[in-house]
Amino acid sequence: MRIGVLTGGGDCPGLNAVIRAVVRKGVGEYGHEFVGFRDGWRGPLECDTQQLDVAAVRGILPRGGTILGSSRTNPLKLDDGVERIKENLRKEGVDALIAIGGEDTLGVARRLYDEGVSVVGVPKTIDNDLNATDYTFGFDTAVNIAMEAIDRLHTTAESHHRTLIVEVMGRHAGWIALHAGMAAGANCILIPEKPFDIDRVVHYIEKRFETRYAPIVVVAEGAHPLEGQMEVQDQGRDAFGHVRLGGIGQRLADEVERRTGKEARFTVLGHIQRGGTPTAFDRVLATRFGLHAIDAAHDGDFGTMVALRGTDIVRVGLAEATAELKTVPYERYEEAEVFFG
Amino acid sequence: MRIGVLTGGGDCPGLNAVIRAVVRKGVGEYGHEFVGFRDGWRGPLECDTQQLDVAAVRGILPRGGTILGSSRTNPLKLDDGVERIKENLRKEGVDALIAIGGEDTLGVARRLYDEGVSVVGVPKTIDNDLNATDYTFGFDTAVNIAMEAIDRLHTTAESHHRTLIVEVMGRHAGWIALHAGMAAGANCILIPEKPFDIDRVVHYIEKRFETRYAPIVVVAEGAHPLEGQMEVQDQGRDAFGHVRLGGIGQRLADEVERRTGKEARFTVLGHIQRGGTPTAFDRVLATRFGLHAIDAAHDGDFGTMVALRGTDIVRVGLAEATAELKTVPYERYEEAEVFFG
Amino acid sequence: MRIGVLTGGGDCPGLNAVIRAVVRKGVGEYGHEFVGFRDGWRGPLECDTQQLDVAAVRGILPRGGTILGSSRTNPLKLDDGVERIKENLRKEGVDALIAIGGEDTLGVARRLYDEGVSVVGVPKTIDNDLNATDYTFGFDTAVNIAMEAIDRLHTTAESHHRTLIVEVMGRHAGWIALHAGMAAGANCILIPEKPFDIDRVVHYIEKRFETRYAPIVVVAEGAHPLEGQMEVQDQGRDAFGHVRLGGIGQRLADEVERRTGKEARFTVLGHIQRGGTPTAFDRVLATRFGLHAIDAAHDGDFGTMVALRGTDIVRVGLAEATAELKTVPYERYEEAEVFFG
Amino acid sequence: MRIGVLTGGGDCPGLNAVIRAVVRKGVGEYGHEFVGFRDGWRGPLECDTQQLDVAAVRGILPRGGTILGSSRTNPLKLDDGVERIKENLRKEGVDALIAIGGEDTLGVARRLYDEGVSVVGVPKTIDNDLNATDYTFGFDTAVNIAMEAIDRLHTTAESHHRTLIVEVMGRHAGWIALHAGMAAGANCILIPEKPFDIDRVVHYIEKRFETRYAPIVVVAEGAHPLEGQMEVQDQGRDAFGHVRLGGIGQRLADEVERRTGKEARFTVLGHIQRGGTPTAFDRVLATRFGLHAIDAAHDGDFGTMVALRGTDIVRVGLAEATAELKTVPYERYEEAEVFFG
Repeated sequence: MRIGVLTGGGDCPGLNAVIRAVVRKGVGEYGHEFVGFRDGWRGPLECDTQQLDVAAVRGILPRGGTILGSSRTNPLKLDDGVERIKENLRKEGVDALIAIGGEDTLGVARRLYDEGVSVVGVPKTIDNDLNATDYTFGFDTAVNIAMEAIDRLHTTAESHHRTLIVEVMGRHAGWIALHAGMAAGANCILIPEKPFDIDRVVHYIEKRFETRYAPIVVVAEGAHPLEGQMEVQDQGRDAFGHVRLGGIGQRLADEVERRTGKEARFTVLGHIQRGGTPTAFDRVLATRFGLHAIDAAHDGDFGTMVALRGTDIVRVGLAEATAELKTVPYERYEEAEVFFG
Repeated sequence: MRIGVLTGGGDCPGLNAVIRAVVRKGVGEYGHEFVGFRDGWRGPLECDTQQLDVAAVRGILPRGGTILGSSRTNPLKLDDGVERIKENLRKEGVDALIAIGGEDTLGVARRLYDEGVSVVGVPKTIDNDLNATDYTFGFDTAVNIAMEAIDRLHTTAESHHRTLIVEVMGRHAGWIALHAGMAAGANCILIPEKPFDIDRVVHYIEKRFETRYAPIVVVAEGAHPLEGQMEVQDQGRDAFGHVRLGGIGQRLADEVERRTGKEARFTVLGHIQRGGTPTAFDRVLATRFGLHAIDAAHDGDFGTMVALRGTDIVRVGLAEATAELKTVPYERYEEAEVFFG
Repeated sequence: MRIGVLTGGGDCPGLNAVIRAVVRKGVGEYGHEFVGFRDGWRGPLECDTQQLDVAAVRGILPRGGTILGSSRTNPLKLDDGVERIKENLRKEGVDALIAIGGEDTLGVARRLYDEGVSVVGVPKTIDNDLNATDYTFGFDTAVNIAMEAIDRLHTTAESHHRTLIVEVMGRHAGWIALHAGMAAGANCILIPEKPFDIDRVVHYIEKRFETRYAPIVVVAEGAHPLEGQMEVQDQGRDAFGHVRLGGIGQRLADEVERRTGKEARFTVLGHIQRGGTPTAFDRVLATRFGLHAIDAAHDGDFGTMVALRGTDIVRVGLAEATAELKTVPYERYEEAEVFFG
Repeated sequence: MRIGVLTGGGDCPGLNAVIRAVVRKGVGEYGHEFVGFRDGWRGPLECDTQQLDVAAVRGILPRGGTILGSSRTNPLKLDDGVERIKENLRKEGVDALIAIGGEDTLGVARRLYDEGVSVVGVPKTIDNDLNATDYTFGFDTAVNIAMEAIDRLHTTAESHHRTLIVEVMGRHAGWIALHAGMAAGANCILIPEKPFDIDRVVHYIEKRFETRYAPIVVVAEGAHPLEGQMEVQDQGRDAFGHVRLGGIGQRLADEVERRTGKEARFTVLGHIQRGGTPTAFDRVLATRFGLHAIDAAHDGDFGTMVALRGTDIVRVGLAEATAELKTVPYERYEEAEVFFG
């Protein structure tokens, strides 16, 4: 069999571990051949390929990023996108495709499967917001990076009386904020799932100030105040005319400073959370995802995606996989609230 | 309610996170009072206590070790052990006990429960070899420490032609070796569950030498060769007259060097794997274990132990918890074998 | 002798290592007694003390922050500040004072010395901008934290075509930006000592884009463009009515995005750089500073400050110590420019 | 000019940073051309070369090991070694050679220079035992790795009463043991420069046991007891018939266990100390060494080696460079002794 592999969407530690596992088992156990497509769906769309054999995957396990490149190119937005991909796969002699990516990438995979392409999906979302799997790789790495940053702030916080605010990733789901905040002992965690009450945040901060320790607030980039609470300053527009996303960290710092009369400083971790070497958890998960994805392709079990359930890797339908966003349930947030203030 | 807390057995990153969660929720939500017992079961046996309130658990979340101390004291080995503990608990006015520990500690907890003591267990084994729970805290930290060590060896291995052998923890179960070896790209992983064939190990090593990269072998301390294969040198006896455990790393290095005619070096990670700050995974798991353990105590659901199933924390009977050792199943080892050689 | 110790100014990894070394040698070798003053000069000003003996310094070596607390209280701004301090030192029976801090703290120390107080200084500036010493502790830690963050950005940068901008500490001197940028392979480093030409920065960025790798720009918080070049948006005022400092990272990202037509993202490391456990370099330097400071006090060599020259710790006059800011010399910046673009 | 580059001797974090700096400045500023020789002196001896241009050094700054490979091949041990190298350099059109390595590598460089070869040296010794330079790259990385390991042991040590012994690198000089032990708060440090008195070591250990904290002993692999003190067990011979070096960690653990009647555990860090990504200090030093080495070659200043003096990079004669071993002076060891026990 000749199998194509591509990685789409944002960066995520563990992508290379998936690629390596697919190729190592595919070549070593099954004798398949591989071709890499460059930059997500742009690869098969423009027939941009790269060699993908055992030599190509040597030494990539610990590396962040993806040796295949990535992009957000969406062929479904082109009139002839699907047709061109099918044509190019034929031209390249590709029998099956392993697509590693998030909601968008897997949405395309599903559509291609409906149109007769033999495709297996591997889920990737650093935000851990995919309902079909217990965890996705990259998430554990992001949480550890954020936790280590907050750990460092604690010692600063102990010596000085100021509020420290850390903005972490999470536009629609607060998993990174929840886990990093819980792991690092934040005094307040704000997530997109639950609009925050600024009065309550200030209450926690002031309660903390009483203890001689300074408050640390972890805020997901997608968190927002109760309607009408914080005067929303215009965030300006970016070079492309879009209203700037994010900025909640700085806005919160301003508001907290105004209300408490004490300094507030913020840190924006940004892309640091998605780069660099993956943690052991993510490397093992990504490797196992890769091993099971090549098994599925070898078995001819197409239209499926691999997923983690407990400690097992299972196969689920691509349709199911992309159906629903996994947000933080109320009871998980409640667990964390015990430590607020 | 007045609740006693103790930690028993070997060190494990996350113990303090459990203690903190128990106390924070117990005081803050339920209004309970706590007393710490020193050094595992020695504490209630000798009525050695320490203050355990919100102030006492401040700042301990990121710290390794346990603020309560630990020991391997087993009251079941004393004629009047159980009686003395019951007596001391009464004397201290303790209504319930939360025991954090491994097989031995929980075995005592179970026995005490059978004798009418109100006890809740929290499982702790760095080796992850407890069947009732998907994971135990400390394991993820140990795996990451071992992985980082092996990562560092890789660059050395690339520059020189020698075999590098890393001995990791795991007397009866190879989980740490399996995960660390898989995460770090070991060329061979040896675990207690499967006696190794030294000829096969040497075969992998020599196959690897052909690639210009040097071989890295991860060996669990409890791994052993097929019967009759390696001449077992006497490891001597320790200060207490016991035959020394361990040493498999060095013995393997000797044997490999002899058979390949190329240098072999070994590293023994030892206690480094059980010390220091826990990873985010372990801090979140330990914190959630603590929160659910105090819930169980508050609910009067004694004789139970908290456990992880998928992403949920559940309660299982103490009997079930300690019934069976969780060893690496064949199919998990097989996954890793894809990368051998 | 009864010796007072205080730490003043901003946080800096290594403060606890200095305190520990002072006390361990002072008690163990010389038999002196110690008293800690809380929160920098506020301590002796308000006679706020804390116990400082061998037990108090146990376990603090690896910890960030300072067990004595800190503040920016400046007694010279009070009419009777110096008098009150002298009075309180007398009252506490303090024979000598060891003051650990930056320019401001040591400026007070110098003034007190001129007024007859027996004082020894230990230099502390995370920015490494003190002329009298080769390095100050805390700097190496800050540089490593920034470097690790930039390392992580590299893998993200490799997978996507966008500019990544990292704002690091350094209001008046660009040492952290220079070292972190050089260590992590930044494509452009901007420091306060040399106003930057935005055209040139954009030139480096576009040159880098040609290589399929994305550009990473490290900018010190005190860096600024050539006069008239970048339209300076009003940064607003903080809760205290001061014009906000900083923000250069975001402004630069906006400008670069506008000029290149490609996304630019920024990260503000903020206080993360000053918190957490110190590196080995900083722990050894801080420990040696402490050992030599207590020697100076024991010798009665007051009005001096310890300093690093090559691998030796020497004593210099407090006057010399605070005389001049150490900025990045042209030839050091030139070394780094080799790697721009 | 066409310039050859080689790396000889043991692994050392920072080698790639030197190579990158040499090539980036050599090509970008001076327009020179480069050729890499494989595996130290084996390269020019057997004319084994590899391409070395700007593309070849991209992304190598953070990587451990050396892209040129290394070996301990010594051409001076061959009758015609020097002649063959001169012949091959001629054949390859090499005008100058930059040799990066330790005492042995630089000894060959010096001999070649005496025979008319245009050579510039870059010092490399992870043990930091070269007298001509304040520091060598790799040392800071090794010290940090050892320190982090010892940090982890501290929390284990706090919970249990046993002695923990860490064996670190250092055959002839105790710099790594001294700095790592000082940075991590070891209770006793043993170095090759000063034969240790086992009675004194046991005294420190027992003193420490009194404090409820457990003792941590850092021992350099080349440390040894006072003559006649410890019964030296036969360490056996390796595959090549040599008496095994090392083993002091284990022997010490046995002896301490026997004498104190309490468990003693040891950890051998081994090659972990020489692998992996370099610290910021080492990357900056290695980069600056590279920049100054290519300057020296460009200037035609051959027979020299670059060295660090304070914060400056200077050139010294190769003869001077290799003249003397830099051991730990008495007063530096004395500083550390303050913390023993």
